[in-house]
Amino acid sequence: MFYVIGLGLSDEKDITIRGLEAVQGSTRVYLEAYTSILMVQKDRLEEFYGKQLIVADRDMVETESDDILRGADKEDVSLLVVGDPFGATTHTDIILRARSLKIPTRVIHNASIMNAVGACGLQLYNFGQTVSLVFFTDTWKPDSFYDRVKENSDLGMHTLILLDIKVKEQSEENLARGRKIYEPPRYMSIPQAVSQLLEIEELRQSGTLDADTTLAIAVSRVGGGEGNERIVAGTLSELRDQPETAFGEPLHSLVIVGKKLHHLEAEYAESFAVDAQLWRDVAQRVYKCNFD
Amino acid sequence: MFYVIGLGLSDEKDITIRGLEAVQGSTRVYLEAYTSILMVQKDRLEEFYGKQLIVADRDMVETESDDILRGADKEDVSLLVVGDPFGATTHTDIILRARSLKIPTRVIHNASIMNAVGACGLQLYNFGQTVSLVFFTDTWKPDSFYDRVKENSDLGMHTLILLDIKVKEQSEENLARGRKIYEPPRYMSIPQAVSQLLEIEELRQSGTLDADTTLAIAVSRVGGGEGNERIVAGTLSELRDQPETAFGEPLHSLVIVGKKLHHLEAEYAESFAVDAQLWRDVAQRVYKCNFD
Repeated sequence: MFYVIGLGLSDEKDITIRGLEAVQGSTRVYLEAYTSILMVQKDRLEEFYGKQLIVADRDMVETESDDILRGADKEDVSLLVVGDPFGATTHTDIILRARSLKIPTRVIHNASIMNAVGACGLQLYNFGQTVSLVFFTDTWKPDSFYDRVKENSDLGMHTLILLDIKVKEQSEENLARGRKIYEPPRYMSIPQAVSQLLEIEELRQSGTLDADTTLAIAVSRVGGGEGNERIVAGTLSELRDQPETAFGEPLHSLVIVGKKLHHLEAEYAESFAVDAQLWRDVAQRVYKCNFD
Repeated sequence: MFYVIGLGLSDEKDITIRGLEAVQGSTRVYLEAYTSILMVQKDRLEEFYGKQLIVADRDMVETESDDILRGADKEDVSLLVVGDPFGATTHTDIILRARSLKIPTRVIHNASIMNAVGACGLQLYNFGQTVSLVFFTDTWKPDSFYDRVKENSDLGMHTLILLDIKVKEQSEENLARGRKIYEPPRYMSIPQAVSQLLEIEELRQSGTLDADTTLAIAVSRVGGGEGNERIVAGTLSELRDQPETAFGEPLHSLVIVGKKLHHLEAEYAESFAVDAQLWRDVAQRVYKCNFD
């Protein structure tokens, strides 16, 4: 059996019992390290699971899938992924490959940011499509995300924005010389994300986003528990002007609040507000929330 | 500490290690039985957890929250919910109440249908807002869901439709006489859901849904593993005309495929198709998918 196992959002204890049993019964266990970063080190996972883990970067999962799948028709092999196997990044390629090799597969689900974002108090029902925001450079500012945010916004829906992560990035020089030397990982911060959003709004001028009247919620290390998870709500300008330390370590995601905001959603999120009075004022005046 | 713990989607082994530890350290453990139904009985959960569970229906969670929260400032109390605490139904009320009583709370996330639906092969990125479909009666056919499906469809997005569940339903007579006697639980089937969708399309005539050219995927008992989870893909008429047994036991959800369908999504789902040739034909001809 080939297992694809979601690890959930935070640390070694977020695996499910079913997932742990599969890990412990597997001959080989791969740990995918690519789109997202667990808030825990590999050796701590190994100690807790009582198993050695083979780190598989995304390249390996894509190009060496037959190596990973080797023998999985006769014994159990597991691939561990952060979040859910069908969360923000899917693992359909390797499952399709397993199918074509007649290897039975089983997916063991877990939480992902796509549902855990509900922790900010906004109803998942009221979210439209999820978008990704990549690091802008001086010459490359891909802005198709803006159309998606606008589509959601026009319907009054909230938008979950997943912020870019750069791992295994090569400098131009190392890339040119074919040297497999990688830069330290980079994670987009909330202030940077908001700045990029407002930069595109400035260009497009559709009125979708406004520094002072668009509400947003920054969600950091969701599922990380007391003292680790952090949720900060405010206007876009408030979030942009926070020091980056206000949000703590990665990973961060950003939610743009849609106009159908319900007063119960607003009330729940108010406890996370930079300025509760301003939050409530904008929710009432701009979002037309009726508080009791 | 007051814990709200997601149980995941299928059975007693879907709880996380962190969740299990919280359960085992709690003085009282409540099991919420309302919007969704775990595929396992209470006594099996109790045996596995080594704890007695107190069943709390939604009424109790809403109206007797102070009883549930009693003492949670000094000892640990857990509330178990199917899926994720912030999945399709949120548990914000009782958390707000705990906050106002100065009781520390922690949410332990898990998979919910909102992310596990990715198992059908469609990318979560390409889903718009989620909708609920309730049982029609002769005199009450609430159709606001149709506007949401149309909004998603106009943007090319997929729609996850959660099908109605009736638990603790009273007959008119029992209701009139104030007798707390409840009917057996009812779960909307896939054929019934499709019939209701097409009934509203017939009334509205917006061309959003078409029996023969709209693709959809029925997702049953997702996360239930081999021989339990079932995914069936086809045109709306194909799904409507399947015997109800084709989808097995509850719970069932339905995905309406949006026009931005990517050929890799279509290929993945093709293995679930009632008729692979027809699936591929509609995906190419109507959805303009380019298969290699």
